[in-house]
Amino acid sequence: MKAIYFDGTKMIFEKNYLEPKSDEVLVRVRLAGICGTGLEILQGYMKYDGILGHEFVGTVEKSNNSELIGKRVVGEINVGCDKCAFCEKGMQRHCPNRTVLGILKRDGAFVEFLSLPEKNLHIIPDSITDEQAVFVEPLAAAFEIKEQVSLEPHWSVAVIGDGRLAHLIIQVLKLSCHNVTCFGRHKSKLQNLINAGIKIKLGIEPSDEQSFDLVVEATGSNSGFSDTMKLIKPRGTVVLKSTIASRENLDLTPTVVNEITLIGSCCGLFKPAIDALTTGTISVDSVIDSIFPLEKFSEAIEYVKKPDTLKVFLKP
Amino acid sequence: MKAIYFDGTKMIFEKNYLEPKSDEVLVRVRLAGICGTGLEILQGYMKYDGILGHEFVGTVEKSNNSELIGKRVVGEINVGCDKCAFCEKGMQRHCPNRTVLGILKRDGAFVEFLSLPEKNLHIIPDSITDEQAVFVEPLAAAFEIKEQVSLEPHWSVAVIGDGRLAHLIIQVLKLSCHNVTCFGRHKSKLQNLINAGIKIKLGIEPSDEQSFDLVVEATGSNSGFSDTMKLIKPRGTVVLKSTIASRENLDLTPTVVNEITLIGSCCGLFKPAIDALTTGTISVDSVIDSIFPLEKFSEAIEYVKKPDTLKVFLKP
Repeated sequence: MKAIYFDGTKMIFEKNYLEPKSDEVLVRVRLAGICGTGLEILQGYMKYDGILGHEFVGTVEKSNNSELIGKRVVGEINVGCDKCAFCEKGMQRHCPNRTVLGILKRDGAFVEFLSLPEKNLHIIPDSITDEQAVFVEPLAAAFEIKEQVSLEPHWSVAVIGDGRLAHLIIQVLKLSCHNVTCFGRHKSKLQNLINAGIKIKLGIEPSDEQSFDLVVEATGSNSGFSDTMKLIKPRGTVVLKSTIASRENLDLTPTVVNEITLIGSCCGLFKPAIDALTTGTISVDSVIDSIFPLEKFSEAIEYVKKPDTLKVFLKP
Repeated sequence: MKAIYFDGTKMIFEKNYLEPKSDEVLVRVRLAGICGTGLEILQGYMKYDGILGHEFVGTVEKSNNSELIGKRVVGEINVGCDKCAFCEKGMQRHCPNRTVLGILKRDGAFVEFLSLPEKNLHIIPDSITDEQAVFVEPLAAAFEIKEQVSLEPHWSVAVIGDGRLAHLIIQVLKLSCHNVTCFGRHKSKLQNLINAGIKIKLGIEPSDEQSFDLVVEATGSNSGFSDTMKLIKPRGTVVLKSTIASRENLDLTPTVVNEITLIGSCCGLFKPAIDALTTGTISVDSVIDSIFPLEKFSEAIEYVKKPDTLKVFLKP
């Protein structure tokens, strides 16, 4: 089958990659998304090698559960050992022995067929398009913030970043908090947020400093972290939604002096995300950009790196 | 009056420093403590210049409240503007316009006389010695953890560091959690902790990794932060109790991937600390080291920097 394999330094298009053989459910990938984590993996993050991609929608091809066959599904990406204390609590995503689709010891979604355990899969209603369904994984990550932080409606909230994930986070936060401001850099990306009534700022003004109860860092950059520290109130809450690749010049002193709480936030459960797309509470249509065939992965990756690009898909 | 003045680069012994003149209470300093923050200020932290020192016990010399005169007092170090939203909530220690004794725009305690507002002062019972009383400020900082984190008795707790502050933190945590381990480096400093039933480790073993529900970082070093990240469980809580001077190689990636909560923790309220010393719930006697006369500040500072030194005092 066709697959995009990453050998740790470069991506290779494989025509005859072996199909997965396991007791898991076999899923034919319909569409897969390219996300920021994927780009970081190409830079060496997680020291991963294997098939890339962890956002997908597909059709069940083989399963021990005959009712699943032919169904359109998305899949939670963490597969736990089912034996440890985390798995016992339903937190497979923190299992120390887990594999993670396209990220850790498990082939991903830039491929014709992938496999996952049945319990990782969620059937997608017909009302959700393939493009929308691919957003379930990042939207679940955005909803994870609501699981971790008790959001107050009166809070003044800032989101740093204007990328694909930031757009989802902003919509999720707006469900709970009236006052949400996006600090972005690329005006063209921000138009749909302006249309949705979000306050937009292209830079920090003196009156913004130490004025936000909650700041969500969604750039993964050093400057994003530094901006976060400028905006957050003493005793405020910061959610770190992106891994910060650089290790230089991260100053934690304000965290201590101003007694800030920093909460790392990663993957979320899929149900709230699927529900929000089904009911139309969250709309992802304005974040959809383009579809490339799997073979054109190199062009797709180059296109994603452009500052104005939103969500790009690969179609096997 | 005698004073130790820091001009931003070096300490100077002043024989004829002007006495404070204000509407505040005038306090004759009986004894002052040297702490880690002071050593960081000498390295340029807070860009402070003025009289050093913020841990002290003294006798009230002049006050508009005649009942205070002659009383032995300790003093909260943050003086707020009394107008902002933080001051209104009693959080003068987060007032954006505050001054801080010996740290920010306010002369400190390495001096014969200092001044503070009356509401910052707490009368010390006769049962508490001068040496013990100087610990009220750092002990309040240790108690601050209990204000910020809802400690669970069954939690497995690690404290990184074996300095003066770590000793106080360990005792405070032991009041709420049965299982407290100190990760230290200097065996001689740890003897009194062993005697108090605390588990001591001089290094991290593989079985320690990701095994603690709460880790308190009290070294202020890069390696302390890195050890913290090794020890904390996924979804665990980290308290940052020391400012980390270096900005290099602080890796926040595990915070995101493992959804760690990092809580910066600074000054605390004095009442719980005074109560704990009065009732004997906390003992600081084993952390007392030596008293130097104010004039011998240089020798005192050099002595404090030695790895085995515990609390050192200056006597005006």
